[in-house]
Amino acid sequence: MPSSVTALGQARSSGPGMASSACCCSPAAVQRRLPIMAWLPNYSLQWLKMDFIAGLSVGLTAIPQALAYAEVAGLPPQYGLYSAFVGCFVYFFLGTSRDVTLGPTAIMSLLVSFYTFHEPAYAVLLAFLSGCIQLAMGVLHLGFLLDFISCPVIKGFTSAATVTIGFGQIKNLLGLQNIPRQFFLQVYHTFLRIAETRVGDAVLGLVCMLLLLVLKLMRDHMPPVHPEMPLGVRLSHGLVWSATTASQNNYRIDANQELLAIGLTNVLGSFVSSYPVTGSFGRTAVNSQSGVCTPAGGLVTGVLVLLSLGYLTSLFYYIPKSALAAIIIMAVAPLFDTKIFRTLWRVKRLDLLPLCVTFLLCFWEVQYGILAGALVSLLMLLHSAARPETKVSEGPVLVLQPASGLSFPAMEALREEILSRALEVSPPRCLVLECTHVCSIDYTVVLGLGELLQDFQKQGVALVFVGLQVPVLRVLLSADLKGFQYFSTLEEAEKHLRQEPGAQPCNIREDAVPDHKVALLEA
Amino acid sequence: MPSSVTALGQARSSGPGMASSACCCSPAAVQRRLPIMAWLPNYSLQWLKMDFIAGLSVGLTAIPQALAYAEVAGLPPQYGLYSAFVGCFVYFFLGTSRDVTLGPTAIMSLLVSFYTFHEPAYAVLLAFLSGCIQLAMGVLHLGFLLDFISCPVIKGFTSAATVTIGFGQIKNLLGLQNIPRQFFLQVYHTFLRIAETRVGDAVLGLVCMLLLLVLKLMRDHMPPVHPEMPLGVRLSHGLVWSATTASQNNYRIDANQELLAIGLTNVLGSFVSSYPVTGSFGRTAVNSQSGVCTPAGGLVTGVLVLLSLGYLTSLFYYIPKSALAAIIIMAVAPLFDTKIFRTLWRVKRLDLLPLCVTFLLCFWEVQYGILAGALVSLLMLLHSAARPETKVSEGPVLVLQPASGLSFPAMEALREEILSRALEVSPPRCLVLECTHVCSIDYTVVLGLGELLQDFQKQGVALVFVGLQVPVLRVLLSADLKGFQYFSTLEEAEKHLRQEPGAQPCNIREDAVPDHKVALLEA
Repeated sequence: MPSSVTALGQARSSGPGMASSACCCSPAAVQRRLPIMAWLPNYSLQWLKMDFIAGLSVGLTAIPQALAYAEVAGLPPQYGLYSAFVGCFVYFFLGTSRDVTLGPTAIMSLLVSFYTFHEPAYAVLLAFLSGCIQLAMGVLHLGFLLDFISCPVIKGFTSAATVTIGFGQIKNLLGLQNIPRQFFLQVYHTFLRIAETRVGDAVLGLVCMLLLLVLKLMRDHMPPVHPEMPLGVRLSHGLVWSATTASQNNYRIDANQELLAIGLTNVLGSFVSSYPVTGSFGRTAVNSQSGVCTPAGGLVTGVLVLLSLGYLTSLFYYIPKSALAAIIIMAVAPLFDTKIFRTLWRVKRLDLLPLCVTFLLCFWEVQYGILAGALVSLLMLLHSAARPETKVSEGPVLVLQPASGLSFPAMEALREEILSRALEVSPPRCLVLECTHVCSIDYTVVLGLGELLQDFQKQGVALVFVGLQVPVLRVLLSADLKGFQYFSTLEEAEKHLRQEPGAQPCNIREDAVPDHKVALLEA
Repeated sequence: MPSSVTALGQARSSGPGMASSACCCSPAAVQRRLPIMAWLPNYSLQWLKMDFIAGLSVGLTAIPQALAYAEVAGLPPQYGLYSAFVGCFVYFFLGTSRDVTLGPTAIMSLLVSFYTFHEPAYAVLLAFLSGCIQLAMGVLHLGFLLDFISCPVIKGFTSAATVTIGFGQIKNLLGLQNIPRQFFLQVYHTFLRIAETRVGDAVLGLVCMLLLLVLKLMRDHMPPVHPEMPLGVRLSHGLVWSATTASQNNYRIDANQELLAIGLTNVLGSFVSSYPVTGSFGRTAVNSQSGVCTPAGGLVTGVLVLLSLGYLTSLFYYIPKSALAAIIIMAVAPLFDTKIFRTLWRVKRLDLLPLCVTFLLCFWEVQYGILAGALVSLLMLLHSAARPETKVSEGPVLVLQPASGLSFPAMEALREEILSRALEVSPPRCLVLECTHVCSIDYTVVLGLGELLQDFQKQGVALVFVGLQVPVLRVLLSADLKGFQYFSTLEEAEKHLRQEPGAQPCNIREDAVPDHKVALLEA
């Protein structure tokens, strides 16, 4: 589908980059807020056919999943369908990605379940309130906050949620009654009363699971869909896909625009008794693999859900809970990333910390798990800013090189290291501070370097700078530090410190450097 | 005093550096926790003479200041003296710096004043509780938290506190009654009732201020004290110093050990009705300029305070409030850094933000001001980690160079930039990612780079890496990214991308790299 990629690509590239300069009513700004304006004018019959098949496939997945996820949220099944169609229509106008589909998801249903208290009105209120917050975040461009949720936190959270959701369905699969909702109590009581299993429920559930497993195996041996395939093949392909879910695709989406779309869906949805919805990994993959071209596929899904609400609700009473349990278990199982622990052990062991904190705490309370994991990631980030590595070379002259940036929390530790290596030895030694990797410094660092220069002068040895980037040099020059000397290369600095002739510092600071000199340096 | 510097220098250098390897009962560890062990064995008669004079000078400053600061804290004057001697004895054993003196300070008194409610018991309880917290922080090595209070925040806070304290004394200087404590109300009422000024109070206060100003001018034209000066000269010198305060000295102190010393002082002090104390800038400068050699000087100060408590308390009733007001105003005035706004404008404009936030909010509530300022500094730090600068060179081959480190919140923005510059142009372009300044990467970044490699492969163009530091290379190799290629120099990479012969990537990743290969790279 290269044409649709290009259409959406144009919509994207005319987006964030130009937004700051363009007024809010320019065509580019309107296209950014209403991405439909970018692809609708080029809509073709070929796209319509592809979108129709994809929308049908997604719809056939969405209906059983919606019924099942309502059970996870602790709501009657029809609430799943109430939540499944508004997103399709909203995303048609506001969506930035052609294959994302909004609707009830397993993890969101788990989160909602803590606040329903078996009373749907709470869940609907929650949809309205969270929609308002999401809209506000989108309008205020707070989408960047999502950057601070690191990948190990997301993996830990989804893996823990998968276990919680999957295990929560064992009782339905086996037909056990009166099992508490809290995870640890649930595990205990499920095993305690495993003898009370109802055979009919268990057989039906296991048969459903087997069927879904066969469909999954069929899918794994099928090539992806192509526009040249006959309609029947593509539809059956979509059906096989729709019964099971798959790995997630990679999207480049505008986080703020997505927040607007999800927020509007939740607010509007709350007027038709929806509970909070979000983007579904599973159905998005179905959509993509069914060959969707534009968000128009969502219209077909939405109509299908509405039709089932109109004609099938009376049948919901007869849906066996164990069949829904089988659907849920097979839908969430692929979200558990079994390899992540081993991968992190091999690639970056430190990242196991936020992963494990999130994973373990999520069994206690999902929201505490995410919060604690995000906090641990943040603290690790701050730690690396406060204690950057320093490379030391003990050649003829002592050279210290901060391996990364230099910001205010790092200054005290750097000062301690410099003092202990250069001044608290006997005799005191000259030092070259190699600042190649430092791209900006703040006033606290400037002050700390000024104190260091004084300390070195008091002891009668030199502290010189090498490899200063222009913005850093500009700041240091404007601070008028006493005794500040810098050299363009390490060799020059070493020559100067060994007092060989011919090596002059770029500038010895005794009086103020005129601005035009700095301007020259920048040129 | 080179000998004392060396003695303390030895105590220091045997400190933090060895702590991790030494057991908690080794001589080095004991010396670190009881710094007195380092200098007492070498104590000499010459040091004793210097310490005696310095201790006397500090004592003569401490007594009037303690009486005055008690007024700032909203307590009877004797509470200042109750708070002024415990610190001298504790610091004798636990202090890491020879000239720091602990006791009541203007700013701490202002902070305490919000919690006294004119009832000294609250202030004493506050001393006990804050002492416990400080001790716990010292034991748990939480001193590093102080690194996160940046210099602009400290400057903003001290400047605002100076204005609050200084203006709070105008009413005492002029003899005005019933002025409210809240800063803005105080300003309003002071000006409203300026006509009620009592002439006697005003004249006495202004004469005291004039006297202190003359002493300050005398000090500014005096050389610092030397051991060769006669005793009388040194003592009078100390007295001139003691009446006024001066700029702060630069110390390298162990933050955790200082927390222990201050915490113990507050806990023990609370048993003798002390209110919270801390290190005093002013008296520390007096101590240093009077030529103190070891913390033993504090013993003399402590005894002097105890003597005045024993024999002078009956006289406190007659101390005129306007004279105390003059002492306070002259003591805090030098803490207001008039030049800091101009300096930051010249050196680093962005740092004016935390300064102004702290300065302005401190007039509302001091603790909110510090919190908000620290938060702003932290957010600025996180912003620079989340949105690092990227240098782009649009030569024959597109080269992107992150100007600093690369951590998880930055990945999404980097990906957007790369996509918009390399893949969303027509035709798509090859890209060299120059990672010289990246000293470590986390799993989120690895995953993001992996997705980028896939995006580039899909479009049929190359993404290659240059200048990888060994730890980064090790992580990327262990992640087995598909299509990962790196070159040691930019020239090699450009040659390869222009498909000239002779340029081979260091390694094309198709299968796992054996560990010994990475080990070789590190060698």
